[in-house]
Amino acid sequence: MLKRNGSAIHRFGLMEENAMSIRKMIALHPDVHGHVNQPLGDAAHHLMYCARMCLSCADACAAEKMDMRQCIRVCEDCADICEATGKLAVRRTGSNERVLREALEFCARVCDACAAECDRYEHEHCKLCAQMCRECAEDCRNAAASVMEPA
Amino acid sequence: MLKRNGSAIHRFGLMEENAMSIRKMIALHPDVHGHVNQPLGDAAHHLMYCARMCLSCADACAAEKMDMRQCIRVCEDCADICEATGKLAVRRTGSNERVLREALEFCARVCDACAAECDRYEHEHCKLCAQMCRECAEDCRNAAASVMEPA
Amino acid sequence: MLKRNGSAIHRFGLMEENAMSIRKMIALHPDVHGHVNQPLGDAAHHLMYCARMCLSCADACAAEKMDMRQCIRVCEDCADICEATGKLAVRRTGSNERVLREALEFCARVCDACAAECDRYEHEHCKLCAQMCRECAEDCRNAAASVMEPA
Amino acid sequence: MLKRNGSAIHRFGLMEENAMSIRKMIALHPDVHGHVNQPLGDAAHHLMYCARMCLSCADACAAEKMDMRQCIRVCEDCADICEATGKLAVRRTGSNERVLREALEFCARVCDACAAECDRYEHEHCKLCAQMCRECAEDCRNAAASVMEPA
Repeated sequence: MLKRNGSAIHRFGLMEENAMSIRKMIALHPDVHGHVNQPLGDAAHHLMYCARMCLSCADACAAEKMDMRQCIRVCEDCADICEATGKLAVRRTGSNERVLREALEFCARVCDACAAECDRYEHEHCKLCAQMCRECAEDCRNAAASVMEPA
Repeated sequence: MLKRNGSAIHRFGLMEENAMSIRKMIALHPDVHGHVNQPLGDAAHHLMYCARMCLSCADACAAEKMDMRQCIRVCEDCADICEATGKLAVRRTGSNERVLREALEFCARVCDACAAECDRYEHEHCKLCAQMCRECAEDCRNAAASVMEPA
Repeated sequence: MLKRNGSAIHRFGLMEENAMSIRKMIALHPDVHGHVNQPLGDAAHHLMYCARMCLSCADACAAEKMDMRQCIRVCEDCADICEATGKLAVRRTGSNERVLREALEFCARVCDACAAECDRYEHEHCKLCAQMCRECAEDCRNAAASVMEPA
Repeated sequence: MLKRNGSAIHRFGLMEENAMSIRKMIALHPDVHGHVNQPLGDAAHHLMYCARMCLSCADACAAEKMDMRQCIRVCEDCADICEATGKLAVRRTGSNERVLREALEFCARVCDACAAECDRYEHEHCKLCAQMCRECAEDCRNAAASVMEPA
């Protein structure tokens, strides 16, 4: 019992810390020297969440009684693009700036499309997914603007 | 400027909220009725983080001057298994309990192996990755114990 | 027109060659020296296919008129596990034998479960998916038996 | 022994069949009615291969004695984008034409960039990867041109 309480407190601390930990991890890359690109770090963080929430929304849609096929398709596609873009966004070895910027710009449009589809439904999971997609799209655009291509 | 400050505050709020949002999303699944399996929700959350942090550690290892090949291999493999297990952990449509439980148990062992490899190095990214892997392994084991197979 | 025919012939040749190319690629790894583990190469090849065919079956199931929720769940989960296992199966840098063998053994059981679920339906995509899963499970078991753990 | 020979023959037949099976699977989707978009089916097939071969090239690069960091980065990123695009390319439930077309167009550029990087090296795995990327880029462009947006 005590152990459980202790574990719960520990876990709460961990959750807090986790919110920072993708950026912290990137800061430890030997070529980054602690100077993380903040908008790109934010995007990396939200892309990870958005990918999983789109997957969860698609799964919830599959269990709804009404026909949610279009929303399933759009959420599954958005999950895949966010997943891939989120992986690109954490890498700092070498340089792939043009690809990264285009990925972020494209992903923002995919998130826009997913938010628009989810907005069409009253399901709470669709509303939450739409909100996440809008915030992720904004983060992707900010991050894309921050990525400099080599001259 | 003001807008930036406002956005930063907003973002901080969002980070807090995000820490809860995978579980919140699962709670909105039509078959879940708000009763989320807490250990499984925690595992879903940490698996998402652990996958990305192992990927980031592998990327940082590739930029280190010393030979980090073994750590790259183990981190990349762990990222892939955490990624897959994390996807299974959010799905609530239908039932795939035996597969889910085995995935969580297997993933815990993969995280153990990754933590052990990362522990061999002094790089801060390896230390952070090892910590994440240990916590993720614990969450996976707790979650596996909470998944009931149909009688 | 001629160009199109030429391209078709070229493509046919490419398809043939592709069937061999995952193994060919692995054979070119600097630590492999051309001696590919044949069962592991076969598994790498089929895991790639099986992941994509399970995804396709889940997508087709979502468009069927009858309730295919359980099959969608099982196919999506199988796609994710095959995907992850397939990635592990191509890596030859460093050594992660125990994880690889367990991944192959686990994946075989996931494929068995997916084949059993797909076998319950008359849809042609389910039948094809079940067949693929059975063959993939067999390849995974052969490959697992071929992976030696370091003494 | 005989069984092994039989199995090998069977496997050879399976390899042949597999080359066709992604398209065959798509043809069985209830909304497709057997009329597969051929360029899109080809792209789905090659994206699957290209994703895995870029992953394999990155893994082989990590084991080379010379500094292959830039090639590892570009191959890993290309693998992720091909993976995501390949998943989008097999889905036929609902409609997400604009996203699919943009994904294919973007992926073609990522494959171009990966081919250009791999072309800089003498390693046989880089040469094979570059060839695969060029063919995949061509397939993606053909497929993008074949995807019609709804009027």
